[in-house]
Amino acid sequence: MSVLVVGSVALDSVETPFGKADEVLGGSATMFASSACHFGPVQLVGVVGSDYPMHKLEPLKARGVDLAGLETAEGESFRWRARYRHDLNSAETLETRLGVFSRFRPQIPEAFRRTPFVFLANIDPRLQLDVLNQVEKPTLVAMDTMNFWIESRRPDLVELLGHVDLITLNDAEARQLTEQSNLVKAAKWIMARGPKHVVIKKGEHGAFLFSGDTIFFAPAFPLEDIFDPTGAGDSFAGGFIGWLAATGDLSEENLRRAVVYGSAMGSFAVEQFSNERTIALARPEIEQRVREFHRLVAFDAPLPQ
Amino acid sequence: MSVLVVGSVALDSVETPFGKADEVLGGSATMFASSACHFGPVQLVGVVGSDYPMHKLEPLKARGVDLAGLETAEGESFRWRARYRHDLNSAETLETRLGVFSRFRPQIPEAFRRTPFVFLANIDPRLQLDVLNQVEKPTLVAMDTMNFWIESRRPDLVELLGHVDLITLNDAEARQLTEQSNLVKAAKWIMARGPKHVVIKKGEHGAFLFSGDTIFFAPAFPLEDIFDPTGAGDSFAGGFIGWLAATGDLSEENLRRAVVYGSAMGSFAVEQFSNERTIALARPEIEQRVREFHRLVAFDAPLPQ
Repeated sequence: MSVLVVGSVALDSVETPFGKADEVLGGSATMFASSACHFGPVQLVGVVGSDYPMHKLEPLKARGVDLAGLETAEGESFRWRARYRHDLNSAETLETRLGVFSRFRPQIPEAFRRTPFVFLANIDPRLQLDVLNQVEKPTLVAMDTMNFWIESRRPDLVELLGHVDLITLNDAEARQLTEQSNLVKAAKWIMARGPKHVVIKKGEHGAFLFSGDTIFFAPAFPLEDIFDPTGAGDSFAGGFIGWLAATGDLSEENLRRAVVYGSAMGSFAVEQFSNERTIALARPEIEQRVREFHRLVAFDAPLPQ
Repeated sequence: MSVLVVGSVALDSVETPFGKADEVLGGSATMFASSACHFGPVQLVGVVGSDYPMHKLEPLKARGVDLAGLETAEGESFRWRARYRHDLNSAETLETRLGVFSRFRPQIPEAFRRTPFVFLANIDPRLQLDVLNQVEKPTLVAMDTMNFWIESRRPDLVELLGHVDLITLNDAEARQLTEQSNLVKAAKWIMARGPKHVVIKKGEHGAFLFSGDTIFFAPAFPLEDIFDPTGAGDSFAGGFIGWLAATGDLSEENLRRAVVYGSAMGSFAVEQFSNERTIALARPEIEQRVREFHRLVAFDAPLPQ
């Protein structure tokens, strides 16, 4: 089944201790699509400025990402400049120029309105709500968000929670949104407001999936070299939702698998700048990493009863 | 098989957001023994002052901890006062009074010198080396350490690495000791200097076991209420070494199980002050938590090949 993603398409300039990238493909929708496209068709809705180097999107098209919903508006594209210090734990934003993205009003093309899996990437929750008014009975609606919206658009965000099946957010965002320092309590707080499933991403410390009373945990893959953490969360979401859409199975067991596919895609994302590693992947590489994840946590304690 | 532990026996006064405990049982050797005793016999070597409330150790004796190596010296016992803030991530030490512990010279009783499993809890690495001169051909020697010794006794610590089979330390200590920010590289650095196995504890973020080229990861158990983190690491070590000693099996598969038993014991430790929860456990509770750990990370991806 197809996945519809609505989010940003940007140009990133990133400096890490290991190198520098200028004006490379960035944005939540592009990173998501570069990951999800390995599992099935992806439809992308976003906006770029008239200055956008459209050839950078060719590899996505070649991988089956439908860009019919990517609008080109008069003006500058969304640009983000950032630097990571030695520990790579948090990006220091040097410059954000929203450009045409500041006037983004998502228009879902007629052909995308019945897409069964919808991912509302990190944009203004009012726009996320507006997207939901344009789509028809999706099988699963998932959303992401960030600290900026938690601070500035809390009522809209809480309203949106009532309309989504699943949310992905990082641990700091979960704590900020719920005012609970304990993540188990934070997840319960969120589930009480709508979502049946909560994925809390902890970056290098892995990810939790909360579903009702059950908890699943997948570690981050222990890599020796982490090149650039940008986009790891959206690549995770792409693998996670991509796997769910490909299988059409929303059982607890399959959601667990989806978290592992998401973790695998997140681990690839950080091995190169931008989407360089994820878009170029071959499926056997993904399956191999999933097997390595399995081995990473495998133990067979004597488990009577 | 028996476990010999050499370390501190202290009196802790701890304040957390959830309560206050005054002069409760503390110290690395006591927390280790309170955990390891659930798996088999434990022999403890340490020192207390003439003011020590010896009745506090009765529950350990009742659980099979042999205190024949616990010396009573003229003077004050080791006392530690600390406070945890809301996030419980790090203790703020308010006062450390080493008392008789500052003159501790471990004397291993004749009856303990052939004990097959030895845990050198966090004490001066010169004393840890001295203990190894007193024991005879143990099956496994494991050690712990802390930032203080990494700073002040680096050459001794590196020498000690050449004489142990396994080290447990936390992520910050691993980075400090090895000057590697990446934990995979840190573990390799350590293994190159002696230990065949490295356990890196990440507190609420779980624990890694490195053995040659293989990596195992166990999450921390996601608890809704964490009461007092003091002693979680030593309780982990007690479950880990206790399980290995009980089974006498040093295979990779059994080391993985041992990490999970360690994680289970660490998760119990934080549910109460001091060793209150760990010492009072019944074995079925431990087995139940190990099963919960199994379920926490279980997934069955299609894993061809």
